[in-house]
Amino acid sequence: MQLSLNTATVRKQWTLAEIIDGCARHGIGGISPWRDQVAALGLKESKKRIDAAGLTVTGLCRGGFFAEKNWKDDNLRAIEEAHVLGAPALILVVGGMPEGSKDLAGAREHIQERIAAVLPAARQAGVPLAIEPLHPMQVTRAAVNTLEQALDMCDALGPGVGVAVDVYHVWWDPKLAAQIARARGRILGYHICDWLPNTRDLFNDRGMMGDGVIDIRGIREQVEAAGFRGFHEVEIFSAENWWKRDPDEVVRTCFERHRRFC
Amino acid sequence: MQLSLNTATVRKQWTLAEIIDGCARHGIGGISPWRDQVAALGLKESKKRIDAAGLTVTGLCRGGFFAEKNWKDDNLRAIEEAHVLGAPALILVVGGMPEGSKDLAGAREHIQERIAAVLPAARQAGVPLAIEPLHPMQVTRAAVNTLEQALDMCDALGPGVGVAVDVYHVWWDPKLAAQIARARGRILGYHICDWLPNTRDLFNDRGMMGDGVIDIRGIREQVEAAGFRGFHEVEIFSAENWWKRDPDEVVRTCFERHRRFC
Repeated sequence: MQLSLNTATVRKQWTLAEIIDGCARHGIGGISPWRDQVAALGLKESKKRIDAAGLTVTGLCRGGFFAEKNWKDDNLRAIEEAHVLGAPALILVVGGMPEGSKDLAGAREHIQERIAAVLPAARQAGVPLAIEPLHPMQVTRAAVNTLEQALDMCDALGPGVGVAVDVYHVWWDPKLAAQIARARGRILGYHICDWLPNTRDLFNDRGMMGDGVIDIRGIREQVEAAGFRGFHEVEIFSAENWWKRDPDEVVRTCFERHRRFC
Repeated sequence: MQLSLNTATVRKQWTLAEIIDGCARHGIGGISPWRDQVAALGLKESKKRIDAAGLTVTGLCRGGFFAEKNWKDDNLRAIEEAHVLGAPALILVVGGMPEGSKDLAGAREHIQERIAAVLPAARQAGVPLAIEPLHPMQVTRAAVNTLEQALDMCDALGPGVGVAVDVYHVWWDPKLAAQIARARGRILGYHICDWLPNTRDLFNDRGMMGDGVIDIRGIREQVEAAGFRGFHEVEIFSAENWWKRDPDEVVRTCFERHRRFC
């Protein structure tokens, strides 16, 4: 089973404990929890239940937000939590420009400096940091916006840093195939969902695999050609559709659509 | 006067004839009309009124949409109209994937082939074609999404093709500065507006200059360093704000904000 559920997909309906049970019930082998849900259930209890359900942790969401005041403490805590959970990577949503700033290039320099500042702790904990390029329309949330840019940062930062490839964020990129090939050995996470042609919201209108226009299987072939053998993690933010549905239906649909379209 | 008004900015309130008068009244020296408005007023009448008002045509919007059935005839007509209007460029919004397709790379190949197919007519008419990279969130409307990709196409296509640089579409790009420098001699249009941090719509929620987070003056310095000396064309699609306001207020605000922020 190569399928993992990012817990954001059903976060409006279920607690983490319910999501863990749901994954087990629907034959989904991996889980990628969000830190607020882990905190609500308790870190050790989360680990215990995930292990008991036989699930593989495929990532912890999220570190990053390097423009915020408490960036350092928060990222050090996140690294420790990822270590306890046995996550193969801490996913970084790197943050945007500080309030009132228009200095995007400066924000990007700060992001790289601040990843460098927490990287020794990540290495010591054995927790790789996954820079996730976010779609350019989400630049105010994350100022790393292409795989090429993320890999340039990885090159500069050295060992212990890689990338998370989310088809939603990168599918439009004319240089995608070349950059996925370049990412060999550094793909720490692979996330799937779909791009709806009539997308109505910049953040919370992702589609279920098969409902949109992304050639998900094509991207899968590219990441596999680059050596990736990890889980396919479904991450769907969908305020008006999937977050309003019966969560068992959502998870069952993820499972079926993954087989058909991914 | 370096300011031009893209007629889309007040298209919900005014006809082209009214926009021409409005530009003259508010001291705006350039105009970039849309073809549907030109057709409504009549091509020769449009040209006559624009000349009488002492306005410079800074572009014609738009050719392109190469995935549509009538792409060839429509682009040939647009080239002829641009020629009659004395437009320095026909702006291409290149179109996306055909209905039902997920082959983005294939769509991009078709776009380049189809620009090549109409390029001889454009050269003969003395109408440069401006490939406008659109924001990646608008990939279904235009599958050219970075300045780098547009310039790669220009390199392949040869003389008679350049780019339109719209700050809204390109400001997020980590490679923007380098690609603007590369565009020297090929910048056929320069469009301004702003990116609202709380953007609510993928197409029609652009901000007035100064209301958002784009360092417009910084991009201006880059295009000028690349040799650009043309007009700054304000193009604001704003269903819920500027399209609902008094058009004289809109144009006056464009004028004032251009001085302050651009």
